[in-house]
Amino acid sequence: MGTSLNRVEEEDYSSYTNSSDFISISLEDNNNTTTTATSTSKSSSELHPVCLPPHVTTWQKLNHRLREIFFPDDPLHIFKDQSWRRKLVLAFQYVFPILRWAPHYSLSLFRSDLIAGLTIASLAIPQGISYAKLANLQPIIGLYSSFVPPIVYSVLGSSRHIGIGPVSVASLVMGTMLDGEVSHSNKKDLYLELAFTSTLFAGLFQASLGIFRLGFIIDFLSKATLIGFMAGAAVIVSLQQLKGLLGITHFTSDMELIPVLESVFNSIKEWKWETIVMGFCFLIFLLVARFISTRKPRLFWVSAAAPLTSVILSSLLIFLLKSKLKHVSIIGHLPKGVNPTSENKLYFHGPHLQLAIKTGIITGILSLTEGIAVGRTFASLHNYQVDGNKEMIAIGFMNIVGCCFSCYVTTGNYILNVHHNWSFSRSAVNYNAGAKTIFSNIVMAATVLVTLLFLMPLFHYTPDFVLAAIIITAVVGLVDYKAALRLWKLDKLDFVACCCSFFGVLFISVQIGLAIAVGVSVFKIILHVTRPNTVVLGNIPGTQIFRSLNHYENATRVPSFLILSIESPIFFANSLYLQERISRWVRGEENRIRENNERALKCVILDMTAVTAIDTSGIDAISELKKNMDKRSLQLALVNLVGTVMEKLHQSKTLDSFRSKGLYLTVGEAVDDLSSSWKHWP
Amino acid sequence: MGTSLNRVEEEDYSSYTNSSDFISISLEDNNNTTTTATSTSKSSSELHPVCLPPHVTTWQKLNHRLREIFFPDDPLHIFKDQSWRRKLVLAFQYVFPILRWAPHYSLSLFRSDLIAGLTIASLAIPQGISYAKLANLQPIIGLYSSFVPPIVYSVLGSSRHIGIGPVSVASLVMGTMLDGEVSHSNKKDLYLELAFTSTLFAGLFQASLGIFRLGFIIDFLSKATLIGFMAGAAVIVSLQQLKGLLGITHFTSDMELIPVLESVFNSIKEWKWETIVMGFCFLIFLLVARFISTRKPRLFWVSAAAPLTSVILSSLLIFLLKSKLKHVSIIGHLPKGVNPTSENKLYFHGPHLQLAIKTGIITGILSLTEGIAVGRTFASLHNYQVDGNKEMIAIGFMNIVGCCFSCYVTTGNYILNVHHNWSFSRSAVNYNAGAKTIFSNIVMAATVLVTLLFLMPLFHYTPDFVLAAIIITAVVGLVDYKAALRLWKLDKLDFVACCCSFFGVLFISVQIGLAIAVGVSVFKIILHVTRPNTVVLGNIPGTQIFRSLNHYENATRVPSFLILSIESPIFFANSLYLQERISRWVRGEENRIRENNERALKCVILDMTAVTAIDTSGIDAISELKKNMDKRSLQLALVNLVGTVMEKLHQSKTLDSFRSKGLYLTVGEAVDDLSSSWKHWP
Repeated sequence: MGTSLNRVEEEDYSSYTNSSDFISISLEDNNNTTTTATSTSKSSSELHPVCLPPHVTTWQKLNHRLREIFFPDDPLHIFKDQSWRRKLVLAFQYVFPILRWAPHYSLSLFRSDLIAGLTIASLAIPQGISYAKLANLQPIIGLYSSFVPPIVYSVLGSSRHIGIGPVSVASLVMGTMLDGEVSHSNKKDLYLELAFTSTLFAGLFQASLGIFRLGFIIDFLSKATLIGFMAGAAVIVSLQQLKGLLGITHFTSDMELIPVLESVFNSIKEWKWETIVMGFCFLIFLLVARFISTRKPRLFWVSAAAPLTSVILSSLLIFLLKSKLKHVSIIGHLPKGVNPTSENKLYFHGPHLQLAIKTGIITGILSLTEGIAVGRTFASLHNYQVDGNKEMIAIGFMNIVGCCFSCYVTTGNYILNVHHNWSFSRSAVNYNAGAKTIFSNIVMAATVLVTLLFLMPLFHYTPDFVLAAIIITAVVGLVDYKAALRLWKLDKLDFVACCCSFFGVLFISVQIGLAIAVGVSVFKIILHVTRPNTVVLGNIPGTQIFRSLNHYENATRVPSFLILSIESPIFFANSLYLQERISRWVRGEENRIRENNERALKCVILDMTAVTAIDTSGIDAISELKKNMDKRSLQLALVNLVGTVMEKLHQSKTLDSFRSKGLYLTVGEAVDDLSSSWKHWP
Repeated sequence: MGTSLNRVEEEDYSSYTNSSDFISISLEDNNNTTTTATSTSKSSSELHPVCLPPHVTTWQKLNHRLREIFFPDDPLHIFKDQSWRRKLVLAFQYVFPILRWAPHYSLSLFRSDLIAGLTIASLAIPQGISYAKLANLQPIIGLYSSFVPPIVYSVLGSSRHIGIGPVSVASLVMGTMLDGEVSHSNKKDLYLELAFTSTLFAGLFQASLGIFRLGFIIDFLSKATLIGFMAGAAVIVSLQQLKGLLGITHFTSDMELIPVLESVFNSIKEWKWETIVMGFCFLIFLLVARFISTRKPRLFWVSAAAPLTSVILSSLLIFLLKSKLKHVSIIGHLPKGVNPTSENKLYFHGPHLQLAIKTGIITGILSLTEGIAVGRTFASLHNYQVDGNKEMIAIGFMNIVGCCFSCYVTTGNYILNVHHNWSFSRSAVNYNAGAKTIFSNIVMAATVLVTLLFLMPLFHYTPDFVLAAIIITAVVGLVDYKAALRLWKLDKLDFVACCCSFFGVLFISVQIGLAIAVGVSVFKIILHVTRPNTVVLGNIPGTQIFRSLNHYENATRVPSFLILSIESPIFFANSLYLQERISRWVRGEENRIRENNERALKCVILDMTAVTAIDTSGIDAISELKKNMDKRSLQLALVNLVGTVMEKLHQSKTLDSFRSKGLYLTVGEAVDDLSSSWKHWP
């Protein structure tokens, strides 16, 4: 390799020496795209020219910028250099990923998917019923939502291992938000209409995010804040389940910690010991099953089968002892039959439309974060690509179709911790059960269909306490204290963001908690930009390398020089700070030199490698700084200006004042050239 | 200098060779603060060790961080190493800057200040009357506000050339906001109370920003957005003045462009030709005077004296022709006498308190941006320091005291364009008139006092049209089209921010315009962080320097290597984007190699110099990337990790997977070492 480098060197040296002709061309010659701008005094032979970047038109810049914002993953690269016919096929496959795998589908794949599908169905049926209750909907809606959406997704979605259905957090949020304005017990029909309408808006919002390629906005819910949010939501959801577990009949509809706890302890007289005993028995059974599965992933089926087993056992128990256990609350009658259509139940006029839209957007964005994270996790495990925006369209359409067939918001189940220590979720079970394609979801849907058509009466005696136990077991994994500890260890600010969203959800409200979470995350970015680091560099002896004096103990100061590295773009938000901070560094260095009787400071070198952008305030700051240094008779040199920064400084004529001994390619060259020029002084 | 560098080298080379003993110490030995972590195969002799930064406790980090946020300018450095007695003196001087210059005050300074003070008084009196009308207050309030606040400021403030008094934009905003809820014509007393109360809250807000050292938040109103905002406000203010200039009696109280224009043309019957003729004559006179002064700064007194001249001439004219010009609207009776106290007029209970607080905060922040910018401009011209937070306390106290003496919000007059092409402002006049200390403001206050005591009857016949002409002339300079053009040339996004705030103010409302301005500015930062640049680096032939292939045309690709520079910290907002983008770069490079039949890609080097921070999402992204590259059998090397980033990657164990051939100090060393290691392969 050393030789090859030399080869390159020899080949290109001629062109390099040619280009050194440009050195003396003035900066003002703007039309020449290869204008070279430097101050090279030929005295130092190693000096390399600093040149302006080639001219790029505003249109090209805008084009590049927009492409990076909206098409960072270049989704159309598969169409490149293909025949028209192939392009058409690819386009169909792009829109309907089912066309990619269906033609190659085999019996062995089917066998895996069948087992996986049946396994997740055994989980999906009790979870569907439970989550619907969380959203204050009839249990049957949860089953409907586990039938139509998985089928839609298997046609449109590109993740292979996701398990589709209602999820706890989105159900909770929908329940809270709608119930805050329209009581689910007094205005049942209106509530149902609003739920379907919210689902429609959630779907429209999700799909349009995908279509307009704005999917990146869900990244603003950082993992740190989601950990806190999910944990808070899980605590709230679990506490809510005390209603079912303790057999309380009068319960608050509030969602915050304090009213819920008050409600629990104020209604201590309503507690029913039979319910409590049975409820906690099943809860312990489910938790033990969950514990076994997390310890030994091979025994995943234990926790997958436990909920259905509990439902069957408890229903049997209640059925057999129904004369003795009269006041245990049960699901009661459920209508048989496949999803009824519900497009006539959508609510487009009236005072609650705004509520439906708001609920739709919030549940939509929450379920997107869940679904996309699931898709990405499995894609990364199996080395296939999942296009986030494409997935959003699939999830969006699934909800749009769903809301016309009596389904509420659905998505892929969330896996919070990407470090393989998954929460107990349907997708994880699907994966462990050996699902090979998304066909497992069709199997699940078929199983749910059979249930809907024939098995509904079996759920008549299912007690509420077992549903509560199932929900608690499902959300317990969302409290990811290990991830929170890791945040504390690695990044205190991330931990603060996590805590803010946790306590926000717990004590204020779900929406405010979410807003706080996003706010803190954005604040973190702003804080970093507002107060960037400036680092003093020193020379690593025997080299031309300059590194932070704090970091590298063997780095040494170069006498008469103050070398500062600015570790951030210079924006309006930090331009004044940087000016003041650099002045303070200079003052501090002058004091230090005075105390140690060293050689006087002559030059300040700014290493601009990390200054990757600049705005007009930044440009003004640089020219102010230059004036300031001139007044103190210090030389100011800029090293390694990034292309765009250099261009802007050039256009604003700020670079002109740096033309003589002010622009260098590396810190080493700047130090050599400047110090050798002082030698020639009298 | 070359020799001195060699000297340093020799001295420290021993310690350097000693430290290379650390090379083999494992990264896990966390307690040893000088732990060195690298992968140095001794094959390549020039390889320099990459070491962890010295251990810093969380407390130290927090301490450092807080100091940088709140005390970036280290305001207490003057107290360092001083005797107790001296410290006390300095502390008094710090709180009351008047103590700094008053003991050294001389007759020659007084002469300069006297002339400057009289000059700005001749400007302040007509402007004070006019601006008070802009805030829908009685003209006398404007004079009161030019008396007490300048005196308070001269004791507490540290800027020497500022001119204190009411300003146009803050007056406009107060007028708009208060009048939107409480009509100034119907509820005169309540309106006045609210104005004083808003002033109190403005002062409290300003002072507490300063005391809690949160002054940096005004930097979020970037210069670009202020240019737009000021221009929009100036247009609105000028259009409002058509009422006075055209002699209209029924006029809208709205502030937006469209209702104002409608109001002007709907009341075409009310236009009075006498008013129009005289008004435009005086307007032209004032504009010409202004034009002369901006062309020849020596003739600054022309524009400084013009307003008072106009007032005197027009008053005389109306007085002499009062029988013929009956329906020209005039100021009328003004009470004689010094400021009455108004602390009993503060409004603390009732439905409009929130309005007063909101108005106070917005006018407070607007007048801060004006005042601080003025102070900083002159400080930079005269090479003295102005502590922004200190100034805010001074301005805040000035308003707190002011509101108890019938004054409304005051500040230093704004100078928008720092490039010496100042708007026509009181501070600029003060400066040009030769003010040496802030004593010029005391002279001005004294002149205003004389006016208040004896000359008030003279303003009885001052016509409204001349006040309108004075306001228009004053705000015309706020439309800084040259600065806007410069924004367009230098930074398109800054120009967009400027336009947003301009049109926001013009068509929506002042508050919304301001909110849009801040929003766009923050969005700019977020956008830069969300979609950072990644740049392919190439070798500059004959050197160990690696620079952008796009920027330096002589840079050449190194075969088998893809060298990427990541130009941003890695945060949650960009971690996924960067992962995808790097994958795309690799894909693109592999395609390019295939097309050109070059040597296969073996290694991806990430130059992390500009990655100045990382959060937990970023850490996960790096380890995901490493896994991804491992799957493609590509080596991944990180170059020049910044201290904090390195520490976090180490703590999260991510660095462990880079220990062998994965960490380098420079790109050159990485290329040399990796390529030489491949040579030994079969």
